Amino acid sequence: MNTMKRGKSITQVDWNLCVIADTKAAGGRYLPPLIEEAVEAGATMIQLRAKGMDTSDIFDLGCRIEETLRGHDIPLIINDRVDIALICGAQGVHLGQQDLPLKPARALLGKKRIIGISVSTVEEARAAESGGADYLGVGPVYYTASKKDLPGVLGTEGLMAIKSEVKIPVLAVGGITAERVGEVRAAGADGVAVISAVWGADDVTAAVRALLAASKHR
Amino acid sequence: MNTMKRGKSITQVDWNLCVIADTKAAGGRYLPPLIEEAVEAGATMIQLRAKGMDTSDIFDLGCRIEETLRGHDIPLIINDRVDIALICGAQGVHLGQQDLPLKPARALLGKKRIIGISVSTVEEARAAESGGADYLGVGPVYYTASKKDLPGVLGTEGLMAIKSEVKIPVLAVGGITAERVGEVRAAGADGVAVISAVWGADDVTAAVRALLAASKHR
Repeated sequence: MNTMKRGKSITQVDWNLCVIADTKAAGGRYLPPLIEEAVEAGATMIQLRAKGMDTSDIFDLGCRIEETLRGHDIPLIINDRVDIALICGAQGVHLGQQDLPLKPARALLGKKRIIGISVSTVEEARAAESGGADYLGVGPVYYTASKKDLPGVLGTEGLMAIKSEVKIPVLAVGGITAERVGEVRAAGADGVAVISAVWGADDVTAAVRALLAASKHR
Repeated sequence: MNTMKRGKSITQVDWNLCVIADTKAAGGRYLPPLIEEAVEAGATMIQLRAKGMDTSDIFDLGCRIEETLRGHDIPLIINDRVDIALICGAQGVHLGQQDLPLKPARALLGKKRIIGISVSTVEEARAAESGGADYLGVGPVYYTASKKDLPGVLGTEGLMAIKSEVKIPVLAVGGITAERVGEVRAAGADGVAVISAVWGADDVTAAVRALLAASKHR
């Protein structure tokens, strides 16, 4: 196992821009070179989200992306699959409310790895923080085509309400575009997590740079 | 974590009748009491197979079934999800050819837990055995409605060809009925794994007893 080969500690993580490598949103494109492109353009975190794929394919993709990121000092977070995160030597997992509960996931992963939790209410945010989550994905802040069956959008007010209740880093997610980065950062987000803003763009490098520029010039 | 609470070692396993608790085949019925019924009727292994369900639901079900089985000294094997097997304290995992590879699964699970591998060719069987699998699920021996997109059926000849190449226990799977148990055992199977023969029956107890009786009176 490649567990913790890079040994990145949580305090070093740059939460600014998490690119979610969503295999459906990427529409069949082979992700590792595109992720490398996103990282070279400045993405600060990568989350692999491969719902519905065969486990052997998620495993292959996760380990290949981990290799790609190894030279970049960028954390790889695996959605839902704690076993694949451990096997591929990823830095952590991201868990939705329908994934594994935080407590047993932490017991398996240990304290050194990152666990992010998707929340859409103040109650979920408080529970995740008190349960030991390292960061929150808060959303959907805006309407988004990348995910279906989500609760109503939070808007920047809902984001602000959650941010004010927790001390751990908060990533705004759901319909985030370069144009909206300024207002979600102004609302307190420590960073953003994006799917469509990168995978729906013709040019990954340009998309990532636009998101980062918006974050710096808010 | 309930890891290895029962501490069952592999040598004690009775391979005779593995009931696969397939959530789709069970058609929405709540599985724990039905599994308890199957075990009280004589089932010797339980495999939880919950493809496509939310992880939180598989986790709940796995841990609930583990509690149900705790008093019965019957191994619980979780399909595909090594993380859930570890968290729920199951005795092992069953891996298809599209699930996690054997080697990293073993690294996570350790040597004391059971790993079963689905195989349908002599080459896959040899690879699984040399890679350290504890048992094989060999099939489909017959046509079955429980699984789609499977390779051609093996028949008892194909089962016999695989059995003759390996030393680890072989469970015949795929279209197994009480009427067919005699011929698959005669072909060398150490046991059978069933889905439809139990979940398609009106009476779980009667179905399990018929399968066991066929195994004893072959």
